[in-house]
Amino acid sequence: MKKILILNGPNLNLLGTREPDIYGRQTMDDCMEALRQRYLGVAELTYRQSNCEGTLIDIMQEVGFSIDGIVLNAGAYTHTSVALHDCIRSLKAPVVEVHISNIQGREAFRHQSIIGPACKGSIAGFGMDSYRLAVEALLEMGK
Amino acid sequence: MKKILILNGPNLNLLGTREPDIYGRQTMDDCMEALRQRYLGVAELTYRQSNCEGTLIDIMQEVGFSIDGIVLNAGAYTHTSVALHDCIRSLKAPVVEVHISNIQGREAFRHQSIIGPACKGSIAGFGMDSYRLAVEALLEMGK
Amino acid sequence: MKKILILNGPNLNLLGTREPDIYGRQTMDDCMEALRQRYLGVAELTYRQSNCEGTLIDIMQEVGFSIDGIVLNAGAYTHTSVALHDCIRSLKAPVVEVHISNIQGREAFRHQSIIGPACKGSIAGFGMDSYRLAVEALLEMGK
Amino acid sequence: MKKILILNGPNLNLLGTREPDIYGRQTMDDCMEALRQRYLGVAELTYRQSNCEGTLIDIMQEVGFSIDGIVLNAGAYTHTSVALHDCIRSLKAPVVEVHISNIQGREAFRHQSIIGPACKGSIAGFGMDSYRLAVEALLEMGK
Amino acid sequence: MKKILILNGPNLNLLGTREPDIYGRQTMDDCMEALRQRYLGVAELTYRQSNCEGTLIDIMQEVGFSIDGIVLNAGAYTHTSVALHDCIRSLKAPVVEVHISNIQGREAFRHQSIIGPACKGSIAGFGMDSYRLAVEALLEMGK
Amino acid sequence: MKKILILNGPNLNLLGTREPDIYGRQTMDDCMEALRQRYLGVAELTYRQSNCEGTLIDIMQEVGFSIDGIVLNAGAYTHTSVALHDCIRSLKAPVVEVHISNIQGREAFRHQSIIGPACKGSIAGFGMDSYRLAVEALLEMGK
Amino acid sequence: MKKILILNGPNLNLLGTREPDIYGRQTMDDCMEALRQRYLGVAELTYRQSNCEGTLIDIMQEVGFSIDGIVLNAGAYTHTSVALHDCIRSLKAPVVEVHISNIQGREAFRHQSIIGPACKGSIAGFGMDSYRLAVEALLEMGK
Amino acid sequence: MKKILILNGPNLNLLGTREPDIYGRQTMDDCMEALRQRYLGVAELTYRQSNCEGTLIDIMQEVGFSIDGIVLNAGAYTHTSVALHDCIRSLKAPVVEVHISNIQGREAFRHQSIIGPACKGSIAGFGMDSYRLAVEALLEMGK
Amino acid sequence: MKKILILNGPNLNLLGTREPDIYGRQTMDDCMEALRQRYLGVAELTYRQSNCEGTLIDIMQEVGFSIDGIVLNAGAYTHTSVALHDCIRSLKAPVVEVHISNIQGREAFRHQSIIGPACKGSIAGFGMDSYRLAVEALLEMGK
Amino acid sequence: MKKILILNGPNLNLLGTREPDIYGRQTMDDCMEALRQRYLGVAELTYRQSNCEGTLIDIMQEVGFSIDGIVLNAGAYTHTSVALHDCIRSLKAPVVEVHISNIQGREAFRHQSIIGPACKGSIAGFGMDSYRLAVEALLEMGK
Amino acid sequence: MKKILILNGPNLNLLGTREPDIYGRQTMDDCMEALRQRYLGVAELTYRQSNCEGTLIDIMQEVGFSIDGIVLNAGAYTHTSVALHDCIRSLKAPVVEVHISNIQGREAFRHQSIIGPACKGSIAGFGMDSYRLAVEALLEMGK
Amino acid sequence: MKKILILNGPNLNLLGTREPDIYGRQTMDDCMEALRQRYLGVAELTYRQSNCEGTLIDIMQEVGFSIDGIVLNAGAYTHTSVALHDCIRSLKAPVVEVHISNIQGREAFRHQSIIGPACKGSIAGFGMDSYRLAVEALLEMGK
Repeated sequence: MKKILILNGPNLNLLGTREPDIYGRQTMDDCMEALRQRYLGVAELTYRQSNCEGTLIDIMQEVGFSIDGIVLNAGAYTHTSVALHDCIRSLKAPVVEVHISNIQGREAFRHQSIIGPACKGSIAGFGMDSYRLAVEALLEMGK
Repeated sequence: MKKILILNGPNLNLLGTREPDIYGRQTMDDCMEALRQRYLGVAELTYRQSNCEGTLIDIMQEVGFSIDGIVLNAGAYTHTSVALHDCIRSLKAPVVEVHISNIQGREAFRHQSIIGPACKGSIAGFGMDSYRLAVEALLEMGK
Repeated sequence: MKKILILNGPNLNLLGTREPDIYGRQTMDDCMEALRQRYLGVAELTYRQSNCEGTLIDIMQEVGFSIDGIVLNAGAYTHTSVALHDCIRSLKAPVVEVHISNIQGREAFRHQSIIGPACKGSIAGFGMDSYRLAVEALLEMGK
Repeated sequence: MKKILILNGPNLNLLGTREPDIYGRQTMDDCMEALRQRYLGVAELTYRQSNCEGTLIDIMQEVGFSIDGIVLNAGAYTHTSVALHDCIRSLKAPVVEVHISNIQGREAFRHQSIIGPACKGSIAGFGMDSYRLAVEALLEMGK
Repeated sequence: MKKILILNGPNLNLLGTREPDIYGRQTMDDCMEALRQRYLGVAELTYRQSNCEGTLIDIMQEVGFSIDGIVLNAGAYTHTSVALHDCIRSLKAPVVEVHISNIQGREAFRHQSIIGPACKGSIAGFGMDSYRLAVEALLEMGK
Repeated sequence: MKKILILNGPNLNLLGTREPDIYGRQTMDDCMEALRQRYLGVAELTYRQSNCEGTLIDIMQEVGFSIDGIVLNAGAYTHTSVALHDCIRSLKAPVVEVHISNIQGREAFRHQSIIGPACKGSIAGFGMDSYRLAVEALLEMGK
Repeated sequence: MKKILILNGPNLNLLGTREPDIYGRQTMDDCMEALRQRYLGVAELTYRQSNCEGTLIDIMQEVGFSIDGIVLNAGAYTHTSVALHDCIRSLKAPVVEVHISNIQGREAFRHQSIIGPACKGSIAGFGMDSYRLAVEALLEMGK
Repeated sequence: MKKILILNGPNLNLLGTREPDIYGRQTMDDCMEALRQRYLGVAELTYRQSNCEGTLIDIMQEVGFSIDGIVLNAGAYTHTSVALHDCIRSLKAPVVEVHISNIQGREAFRHQSIIGPACKGSIAGFGMDSYRLAVEALLEMGK
Repeated sequence: MKKILILNGPNLNLLGTREPDIYGRQTMDDCMEALRQRYLGVAELTYRQSNCEGTLIDIMQEVGFSIDGIVLNAGAYTHTSVALHDCIRSLKAPVVEVHISNIQGREAFRHQSIIGPACKGSIAGFGMDSYRLAVEALLEMGK
Repeated sequence: MKKILILNGPNLNLLGTREPDIYGRQTMDDCMEALRQRYLGVAELTYRQSNCEGTLIDIMQEVGFSIDGIVLNAGAYTHTSVALHDCIRSLKAPVVEVHISNIQGREAFRHQSIIGPACKGSIAGFGMDSYRLAVEALLEMGK
Repeated sequence: MKKILILNGPNLNLLGTREPDIYGRQTMDDCMEALRQRYLGVAELTYRQSNCEGTLIDIMQEVGFSIDGIVLNAGAYTHTSVALHDCIRSLKAPVVEVHISNIQGREAFRHQSIIGPACKGSIAGFGMDSYRLAVEALLEMGK
Repeated sequence: MKKILILNGPNLNLLGTREPDIYGRQTMDDCMEALRQRYLGVAELTYRQSNCEGTLIDIMQEVGFSIDGIVLNAGAYTHTSVALHDCIRSLKAPVVEVHISNIQGREAFRHQSIIGPACKGSIAGFGMDSYRLAVEALLEMGK
């Protein structure tokens, strides 16, 4: 059974309550519940969130040499953090970048991804289904 | 049963022969065969390719008001074509942008996607599996 | 009697159906019908459209040394095509650039016209009436 | 009968004497005479000119809530005046931007129009005939 | 009685000791004391400070749905933090951006405020009095 | 008693009638009335407005060496006028920059303030209350 | 005897009182007196000043076709006015650009001269002596 | 005997008639005739031209794995086409970029070559002789 | 005896394991051991590391007014942190910037150092020996 | 009697023969002859020229601590040489920058002067008379 | 018989020893020997090299009015020297720019040629054969 | 015993006399004397200086294949010379870039080092001690 970490960055703890026009009304708990159901016996999914750039690095360093993949929604740090970029590049586990909304269709300062070049691939714009597609992609990689 | 068009842009007819370090050795025929097998009875998948920007628009206008979704790998036109952007925006069917390689990790002129803001979402970096993930995403949207 | 070509670029075959908030609901057929009626006996108006940059050049080279003027709505190619710019500059017939909407008031990437410096003049923002004003301008030039 | 103001900005009082290679030899008086003749009984045309940005705003505020349209050749202020932009946006009457020469074909600092996005539409490059086409456009709008 | 949080970002715990030419010699304790005195019975003022971007977000999420306003001096994060921008946008309480010095008159990299567009308004350049003016503004908003 | 000039730039004579979504429906007369009432016996407030950059300079030079402060809403000239910047820098009286709306949250060309570095401080985004806060700030400075 | 206009732009009426570190303590009256003395019988020197861009244009149009040269210190408009550029280009009299301080050694936004390319030549950095050198240059040209 | 394709892009079918100041009066037929004569028995030269970006790719893919070299004058697509760049990179045959005029000495938008980095080398500025020099270079490479 | 803090930023806890091609195989423990040996009796060296920008500031504020110098390898925060810049500027102890690799020879986004202008000096490119050279420099300063 | 060096940079040894449309037909010998005549008994003028950046620095270092002023036409090095900038700044003698043509009216890469901020003042656009005006300025400074 | 100078710039004296992956192993002596053999009786070829920008100008001024052409590989000065640009423009003999490697395919700072617009034409990417092609081009020009 | 060249660029012959606020009062002779004393029996240190870019290249080519290291303070050429960059890259001996002042804290045009990516490492900001630290670094490398 594959071990996958789903890791959310700043402000994503408010999912389902904040700006529902952009992010929808589903909470991250609902999402994790659905994903665990779907991948029962196939993948062991854990979930972590932090508003702090340094803590996100701590978490990834802790598990990134032993698990099979990381699904990372770095939120606003996507566009500013060279430190997360360096961290992702140093890990053994593949990291997939996800975004709930289509960041290309939003404000200009959200078009550039600093962490993108260090990730294996990226998925954006499919709402909460972006997380499932990332898990799918990681499972396929491992074959 | 859902109708989905998989549409490839310039130079992607050479997939499997060209720059295998970046694009791998699988041909588009192999890929389509595998996809059709996997989604038998769920989705009807057709495939088209053209090296010509105008022809890609012709094809999308032809089917874009009647089918359930388009998986578009616009190749190099991704980074230059305002005309494809306008076309995608005018269609009824949702369009998902796909790339075989992680374009963020390649040359700077491949970092910007002109068509991205007009698409529903984007998937990049998973090799030929990018196409399957896009089909998955379109099927989920229709639910 | 003056001979004038009205030439439309990519996606403008969908006029009247696509994004009516920006382009209105009148079709190009309605527009041509009205123009032919108005300039009966004064101007002989023909209409062509193509989604392909190269075909637009072919058409302009074919008639651009024998007719009295070209009304060109190059659509998205307005902002990207150096090839159309070169073509316009090489013709004998004057070319007038038209746009249905006021492109200055739309997205930033529509503010620059690559073909503009090669055209005689430009008209933008008057809906389908932009075509009539361009014909007016060409008729006046010929006097 | 429609009331229309034709308003010229800085240095355009020298029309007919200044840089005739670019602007031609016709004076603004000749132009107004011809226009009044042509639209006799259809439109009441008044003419004003000022070299001062603030005075142009004063004039437009004075008539911009009661007349049917303004034809504005803002000259050099086209490229620098946010204040004129704001003024145009605040008026009830539609404003049409005109230029005698094709500004896209001149120096780079004349390519951008600050006032453009606030105007209804723009006409450039047809010599003194640009003014007539703008009147035509305003008359059609009112129908 | 209105509840207002005054929140300071990185290095502002050194106020009164650091670079007195720019920031003056008054400490934040003096300032809070004076403000509490002035708004006795009108506003309940609490004060928090952190050098950590993530902790600032934690604090604002904690109180930002129940109190009446936040006065935020984000210090250096003003110019770099998209995460704070997103946080402010997601809260119910209005946030007022303050700066002790006139940031427009300092180094170029301090001219742009990333958090500005998400705030209700901004106040800069009045020394420690900037905090009082922000409280004034929040009290007026609530009327 | 302090003498303070409140000075408005271009188009701000239309306050209360123009684009009420952005600027509200209160007129400048209402605002001055309320301010005079509030600061009766504390401050003597005069009001001037001009659409002309040069006239704004004339006014500030006239009083800027004898009164106690100037509240300046330079409107569109905020973003373009080096001449106002130079004028402010040459005066003895402190100048406070105000804006009714939060200019950071509007179009990109309104983000930069040319006059900002020459002013004492700036206040933006609090509607007509911005003027009161500026008077408050000037009164405090004088203590 | 040569007729020469010395024309000063915004804020230069304060010369001798404003920012003496940069501009010195000599007034413009002292300067004109000295120049008239020096060129007695050789040149007839008149002096004008305005804070208004439009008025500067009015003045130059009035004399620019009959006198022998203009010495222009456009002050802050040097860096922003396309309208002055156009005006200078349209005149018959040669215009010499002068600056009291060395503008290349001051703030970055004073490095570019918009009016420079339209002038005959430029002189900067010699204090009030810049005016004399410009008169010298115009007298030499006329030989 | 070496097989070499000479391929011309948009508008180059008008060579000898269009803008003779820049391109001269020799037609492409004259040029090919002279080249075939010169390399009789040494090289087999074929000639193709298209105004369409996609067709140029089709042609190069067709022969680019079997012939000995391609001389490509991509005309205006030189400066805009990432798709041609990708195509050239995928071929087995070396491609030499040629230009009739010295593109560095023309308009700024002709200074950058998008296809250049994918080509073997480039030759520009020698009129029709540029084609001969390119053939020379390809023959030398084959040795 | 001099007191010196050696402070490492994000991801540098992985030194010796991560990307050995760039950073070498020596761990930070080895490095500190060697340094302490070398400067026995001359300098008291302490070592701290954190992945968190805010914690790095906390640490520097804590010791920065009492010790003799700080050797700072801010890792990725070098290129993004205005907050660290402000912190360094506020301390009494001199700070020396070090980098293991030659950052000028790596990716473009690593060429700019935001913290550099606030530091006393910088040393880059000498592998782990960069730390020793920085200690050398601080000891010399103290003489 | 004042000692002044007139120093010319690269290609200015060809003055009078090269591009006479821009630089005129007078040689530097003619110019020096006329200047020496004019300032007989007032100034001792010496002349040097070199095409080499380093030699220009050698010359200026040699005399720049003992003479009364340097008139420097650095030619093309004006726009590229930080080394000349540093040299000028280190000298005791004032340096006046001169240009024969109006550099603001020529190609864009000649608009920026790297040496300008280090010079006392600059004079451009008056043909060979620029040298005389510079001598005039230096003589006045010495008073 | 034609006289042609082959002139190499900085570091090109090391050809054949330096970075052979980019420049190959042939020395310039081998190259000159081969060229002289090939053009025996047709062209008289001389060779010069200097690491100094000023000396390259001296050499070109010395022969540039009497010989039939110059083949210039300006090495690194290609990208920085306005002085060489001016020199080339002033000569009577045509200058052809050559590069051994394809500069468009190397680092970004080697993409721009400052000297290019002043040369007759350019040839790049054919190894040492670039020199021969340049001689060919000059011989053809002379016909 | 190691052989090391210490090489200074333009204007550094004036060290100890020029701008002592930035560079201190120690001369290069004092510095060399101290260094030779310190490394007696360990390193043989030679010193060269030139104001000429080409001569610096000549010197480095002469010794760069036989000695053990070069300490290079390229002065102003640091920021402009691609030719020095190429030279450094072609040598066998490692080159260490040094600066006396912290160039990151000075004018913007001194922030970029063109030669940096070609050097082994860089040291800046430690006054004359920068030279010693560079020698230290080279000695360590050789171990």
